[in-house]
Amino acid sequence: MGSNTFRLVVFRFRPGGAFQLTEEVREGVRLSSGQVNGRLAEAALGRAARASALYAAFCEASGISEVDALATSAIRDASEPEFVLQTVSAGGRIPVRVLSAEQEARYGYLGAINSTTLSDGVIVDLGGGSLQLGAVTDRLLTGAKSWPLGAVRTTEHFLAADAAPTALAALRAHVRATIGPTDWLLGGRLVGMGGSVRTLATMAQRAESYPLDEIHGYHMSRDQIGALIEQMAALPANERQRIAGLKADRADITLAAAVVLDTAMEQLGMATLEVCAQGLRWGAFYERYLGSQEPRFPNVRAASVLNVARIYRYDRVHAEHVAELALQIFDGLASLGLHSGDPLEREWLWAASILHDIGVIVDYNDHHRHGEYLVMNAGLPGFRHRELAIIGLLVRSHRKALPTIGWRAPLMNSGDDTLLLRLAVCLRIAEQLERGRSQRIRQVQLIAVGNAVHLRLGTNGDASVARWAASSETGAFAQAFGRPLTLLPGS
Amino acid sequence: MGSNTFRLVVFRFRPGGAFQLTEEVREGVRLSSGQVNGRLAEAALGRAARASALYAAFCEASGISEVDALATSAIRDASEPEFVLQTVSAGGRIPVRVLSAEQEARYGYLGAINSTTLSDGVIVDLGGGSLQLGAVTDRLLTGAKSWPLGAVRTTEHFLAADAAPTALAALRAHVRATIGPTDWLLGGRLVGMGGSVRTLATMAQRAESYPLDEIHGYHMSRDQIGALIEQMAALPANERQRIAGLKADRADITLAAAVVLDTAMEQLGMATLEVCAQGLRWGAFYERYLGSQEPRFPNVRAASVLNVARIYRYDRVHAEHVAELALQIFDGLASLGLHSGDPLEREWLWAASILHDIGVIVDYNDHHRHGEYLVMNAGLPGFRHRELAIIGLLVRSHRKALPTIGWRAPLMNSGDDTLLLRLAVCLRIAEQLERGRSQRIRQVQLIAVGNAVHLRLGTNGDASVARWAASSETGAFAQAFGRPLTLLPGS
Repeated sequence: MGSNTFRLVVFRFRPGGAFQLTEEVREGVRLSSGQVNGRLAEAALGRAARASALYAAFCEASGISEVDALATSAIRDASEPEFVLQTVSAGGRIPVRVLSAEQEARYGYLGAINSTTLSDGVIVDLGGGSLQLGAVTDRLLTGAKSWPLGAVRTTEHFLAADAAPTALAALRAHVRATIGPTDWLLGGRLVGMGGSVRTLATMAQRAESYPLDEIHGYHMSRDQIGALIEQMAALPANERQRIAGLKADRADITLAAAVVLDTAMEQLGMATLEVCAQGLRWGAFYERYLGSQEPRFPNVRAASVLNVARIYRYDRVHAEHVAELALQIFDGLASLGLHSGDPLEREWLWAASILHDIGVIVDYNDHHRHGEYLVMNAGLPGFRHRELAIIGLLVRSHRKALPTIGWRAPLMNSGDDTLLLRLAVCLRIAEQLERGRSQRIRQVQLIAVGNAVHLRLGTNGDASVARWAASSETGAFAQAFGRPLTLLPGS
Repeated sequence: MGSNTFRLVVFRFRPGGAFQLTEEVREGVRLSSGQVNGRLAEAALGRAARASALYAAFCEASGISEVDALATSAIRDASEPEFVLQTVSAGGRIPVRVLSAEQEARYGYLGAINSTTLSDGVIVDLGGGSLQLGAVTDRLLTGAKSWPLGAVRTTEHFLAADAAPTALAALRAHVRATIGPTDWLLGGRLVGMGGSVRTLATMAQRAESYPLDEIHGYHMSRDQIGALIEQMAALPANERQRIAGLKADRADITLAAAVVLDTAMEQLGMATLEVCAQGLRWGAFYERYLGSQEPRFPNVRAASVLNVARIYRYDRVHAEHVAELALQIFDGLASLGLHSGDPLEREWLWAASILHDIGVIVDYNDHHRHGEYLVMNAGLPGFRHRELAIIGLLVRSHRKALPTIGWRAPLMNSGDDTLLLRLAVCLRIAEQLERGRSQRIRQVQLIAVGNAVHLRLGTNGDASVARWAASSETGAFAQAFGRPLTLLPGS
């Protein structure tokens, strides 16, 4: 229950198993709009009451087993707290928890720490009512501050009449003065969250015709934010929704949000922000999913891969065995000096091996293609978008055609095509060796014999099938590594 | 175990529940190649033995609970039957059933009758060894004949040396003489199956840049087959695989297959063939899934929709309620004379209502878009491709943007845009009325009041939420039906 939006999200999860956001309803409530000294406006309360009644009915009817409603600054700072709580709880039908600024910062932190690889840096959370900054050191929240610089509040105070340069400058000066020195923050990476950040990211992606429809993990620069500020300021508030990516009910407040964000980044000396789409609500979810004792994934990237695998009901034994064989081939090739053995590449290979068959849930035919679609659309929090494209393309090329970059080029680096070919060959040989899904090939060993590479199979029974299947990949191997490959009978 | 290919397919199913093909392995075996008077060639037997050993290992290792191996004409007609059976059963590890021509025809029929809406017509099944024709009357198989006119056999007898016009003409004459009069077949629709038909369909789709990657339900004309014959005959056999859609291991035999198929269609007086990708193997599956007593779906289209819904774990109660409300709105609009109430449109609306939320399995974000992807890629056997596009687009437009045809245009008819808008509005209002997933809106009634349409809600408790949610669709309603819509409080 925020200052701009009340949002209901439903998570489905199995403790220790798959988790997924399965439903989302949002209502623009503008709760802090028109408030005077903490006294909320009648119209705002009416909108809040209506949204709360809707959500209460939704939860009661949907068989949702646990409801946890979180209220942030607009409600926390309201005068007449009992009356306001009575209203937003729909007469007690919704159990509302009013979060302290510290709790609010902690939930935002838990969302970010479980969906990004942030270890040391700053979290900026820009809401309708407040702006929060959190310091993260060694994956721990080591400090947080909050100011009433949210998008709704600053719009009303500074940009209610127009967006003249002087008004924008006044807002900037106010943000600088309010935030003050930021030397309690140590720098590092900057992760941003909140509805305004998500909106700005969507607008920035539209402006550059970004090829991926995923904002989590998107990197947005101050230059991009500056361009959006110019574009918005040049239009009256009621025409700004024509800008691609800007929803009507945010058209007025997003300009102030962009100015606040940009000024905060300037203060912090940070040129780029990494968008985190998993904020407060996800933080509260992760606490429930992981337990309040240690509500952090030890490894966010591995957790993402396994969650996606579980959602699409992967065959764990087969996938893990393919991963094991693929990594043995990868390591063997590195020890022969045929590639560098980069640990990042190794991780991508592992992820693609675990996920290679998930497309079967769509249809066996073309499951390699469906698998890439699922990876690209479900996302893998903690991986960069380039990495997502690499993993998706490896899934796609675990059988049939070898990888070609095509439309994914804007997400990738030059040279990624040869990297992809090498990793795809490791995955394809492993998949063929495990084609019978029998784990009969226990291990592989790579041996250089003159110019050629011999693949020796450690087997558990007859390996003729695996050898025959894997021999289909010798051409691709020669293409990737410039050496002939021979499959040897094993022990 | 066919004359050209040994193919292993794995079905996963819950009795009475979802079923899905989850794995497929194919090996070109060319079993009938080089056979003399039913005596199979050594090399062919060796290839068969190797494929059988692979499949035996696969089944033993994969925890597959039931194995049913079906052998067709090459094995049925082989001399030395015990020796051949010993070989293809991998020394008894695979339980092989040698089908009679009648059983083979029946399984093909069961595949077709459960995946198409064929009621009266002819099934043509073109294998490597034999050509079969089956007569279907009132959904029953009323006759079947089989001739040794399969693609491998006719290639060896007529086109082994070259594909000169005289050789093609000799093959045509042979097919005509062999099939003889077809007056035991009553005409009607023609459904085609078998590897050669699937290959020709893929080639035909590639030739016309067909926008959908699905051959089941594709309609292929004799003109298209004739063009492919010309294209293949103009190339030596070893260069034909350059033609898009033609696999290397079928590059030599597909020309003869096309000539046989085209000649058979000419004899039957049929200009178009409807491709059925579910042949013998699916027929045997359906017998197991549905029971041998009555192994036919009462309604193939409904079964397809429900199967796709179950695969993606739909919320049955919610989906059925949305369908009920959407159809009430559809019927109400028809009774007011605002559209024709076409029963086909009604069926599409039902299908889209049942499937509208399946995309949630990919991700809640953009689930409308993922839902269309799943519909278009999983397919809905029994529906035409135009219908698939309509249902997919309705799923996509159950929320967010109204339907636009875009890339799907080649699949659709002119006028489909207005039809889609009307159906989408029915679905969108129903979805909004059931937004709380509470089934609180029991029924809807449409009443004309002057130029306006009033929607009266029969409710089960407070309907303010539903009324408020559905009111978001009044603009779309006016656009679709040219009338204002008002939501009335109900009883």
